[in-house]
Amino acid sequence: MQARTSSLAMSFSFDLAQTDGRARAGTLRTPHGAIQTPAFMPVGTQATVKAIPPRDLEQLGAQIILANTYHLYLRPGDELIARRGGLHHFMAWPHPILTDSGGFQVFSLSQMRRIDDDGVTFKSHLDGSMHRFTPEKAIRIQENLGADIIMCFDECPPPTDREYNLIALRRTHAWAARCRAAHARADQALFGIAQGGVFRDLREQSARFLTSLDFPGYAIGGLAVGESKADMFQVIAWMDEALPTAKPRYLMGVGEPTDLIRAVQRGVDMADCVLPTRLARHGAAFTRDGRINMRNRIYAEDERPIDPECDCYACRHFSRAYIRHLLQAGEILGMYLMSIHNTAFLLSLMRAVRAAIIQGRFEAFAQAWLARYERTGSPQPEGTPTQL
Amino acid sequence: MQARTSSLAMSFSFDLAQTDGRARAGTLRTPHGAIQTPAFMPVGTQATVKAIPPRDLEQLGAQIILANTYHLYLRPGDELIARRGGLHHFMAWPHPILTDSGGFQVFSLSQMRRIDDDGVTFKSHLDGSMHRFTPEKAIRIQENLGADIIMCFDECPPPTDREYNLIALRRTHAWAARCRAAHARADQALFGIAQGGVFRDLREQSARFLTSLDFPGYAIGGLAVGESKADMFQVIAWMDEALPTAKPRYLMGVGEPTDLIRAVQRGVDMADCVLPTRLARHGAAFTRDGRINMRNRIYAEDERPIDPECDCYACRHFSRAYIRHLLQAGEILGMYLMSIHNTAFLLSLMRAVRAAIIQGRFEAFAQAWLARYERTGSPQPEGTPTQL
Repeated sequence: MQARTSSLAMSFSFDLAQTDGRARAGTLRTPHGAIQTPAFMPVGTQATVKAIPPRDLEQLGAQIILANTYHLYLRPGDELIARRGGLHHFMAWPHPILTDSGGFQVFSLSQMRRIDDDGVTFKSHLDGSMHRFTPEKAIRIQENLGADIIMCFDECPPPTDREYNLIALRRTHAWAARCRAAHARADQALFGIAQGGVFRDLREQSARFLTSLDFPGYAIGGLAVGESKADMFQVIAWMDEALPTAKPRYLMGVGEPTDLIRAVQRGVDMADCVLPTRLARHGAAFTRDGRINMRNRIYAEDERPIDPECDCYACRHFSRAYIRHLLQAGEILGMYLMSIHNTAFLLSLMRAVRAAIIQGRFEAFAQAWLARYERTGSPQPEGTPTQL
Repeated sequence: MQARTSSLAMSFSFDLAQTDGRARAGTLRTPHGAIQTPAFMPVGTQATVKAIPPRDLEQLGAQIILANTYHLYLRPGDELIARRGGLHHFMAWPHPILTDSGGFQVFSLSQMRRIDDDGVTFKSHLDGSMHRFTPEKAIRIQENLGADIIMCFDECPPPTDREYNLIALRRTHAWAARCRAAHARADQALFGIAQGGVFRDLREQSARFLTSLDFPGYAIGGLAVGESKADMFQVIAWMDEALPTAKPRYLMGVGEPTDLIRAVQRGVDMADCVLPTRLARHGAAFTRDGRINMRNRIYAEDERPIDPECDCYACRHFSRAYIRHLLQAGEILGMYLMSIHNTAFLLSLMRAVRAAIIQGRFEAFAQAWLARYERTGSPQPEGTPTQL
């Protein structure tokens, strides 16, 4: 254990460069490179950030991406990826990668799951075959995939069901200890995941227990799954007080621009979400004046780029009129340009957030940004928000 | 007419740099740039070469792309594109563009078409609305689109039906004369399209008639639509003798690598086809050792690029194993990488063909290339050829 910790210490570090209120700017170092925080992490579920080649991700300034243990275990298989040299080599992304544990997908995607204290048995959503994940198995799969940051296997219950959260939290904590014991690769950092729903005592209990295991980073799990925004931000604020300040905090599954800003206001360092690329494929685009539906007829002859203040490839070269045509015609290029833009938007936002923190003007930045994004009656034509 | 010809002469020219046997290397100049021939022209049916951003097309060395009058007339509309500054600006492709006349699509895609000597009435495949194309309308639409090279409106009958070809050829010739008369933009070159099916006398009659109208270029239409390969190459050879040597010859709808080489052997300067991008989306890839089906299980752990001798982005960075995974998972990135590769393959092939012609070694090049591509019992694993 001591040897592992020393080896980890050489490969991984988290340095807080600056705090501004509760907002934090730092640098997380991994064997495949450094991540400047606060960071948005694009999601590459099946070993590709949907529609975006790695070359473009680099140009957009992505420093770390996610991949998904559940999906890659089922297809093409974690052992195949290990034989192909691991995920970095397999997907030609030589920069940091984080894999989630598969827990969330087992509970949300698979069919006929059966949970017991030892693990979860589930049916593949691809071909109906039966599989079993235990904490040890989730770690072994993630070691095969070889990401820089890997996650504990956890249970993600409905956030407002206190009885279920009590049971699930006991399991999540036992599984965290087993993941910690099973994890052997010195070039990977294993993060704990705090659960506890919307209940302060459970969240604090979770933070205490996980901290006692001394993980190199802590995720806030079980949010953005149906609870109110007020509840979500309240839990994040509690976690800010409960988690150790010297370790990175990763908010799982959050990617709305306003949510990212409000999470950073409450001490979050990292967040991930499929939102930018999923919205893109459905025709919804982020702009500094709010979200717009690019399929809306009002953009049919709009010569402006998606967001006139964006400098991504899509916005430097293509009009809303053209992109709307591509979307209406079902062309892949439309999904590509929209995905590029929405991802660029969040990465650029987080760079601006970080600069504001370092310059000690984050609160003013956040207020102005949120006011503009959320303003109603904007003079710019707005589409019907896409509900996803 | 004289003024237009002079003006055209300033914007357009075709210079034959070298011939080698019947193969020709030349340069076709247009208002948006020069095209080195023999040239393969990627097809951007709906104002996008499917899945390939213009930036990548430039990097692959595409010098001219096609767009489709029938599709763009229906969606988003040629008048909308004209208001948006024309097709070059609309799709952010500042290089040469060729639009076909819509004739082929009216006959192959639309429903309930009714042909008379004045034009064709047809039902949109998108929404069932009724439309009518005449030669004058096809020219007006193409003037709205604003491509550098536009095509006469023609009728494309089954190639072996002599009676139908006699009737259709009369109409195609009358329509060519009307297109010639209707065409007014001096910055566009209008090409004639020779028809006549697989019948030598009709093909020669078509070449004579169109040549009398003095077009700046001539297309060989009505091939690659079901006739035998032997018939196709026989017709191309006849056309080589019948068409003026000083003008470019454009073979419509051909994109199989071996067909391109054999067409160049018979005096063809330009060709277009959706094949590279359509095959790509179905998982079939060109390699110097023949076409392979990248979905084949034998590539699941194949560390080599699609084609080890290709220097495209897909082949420089990604393994067959990864690309197969992307295709199996239905990921857009898989279609993107395959489309990039197949298009790069044909563009690279045509550059090699041109270099061989200029160096007077085309016949040897062609024989060696065809022998390798068509070799059976290749030592490299081959997938089942995709039938499309």
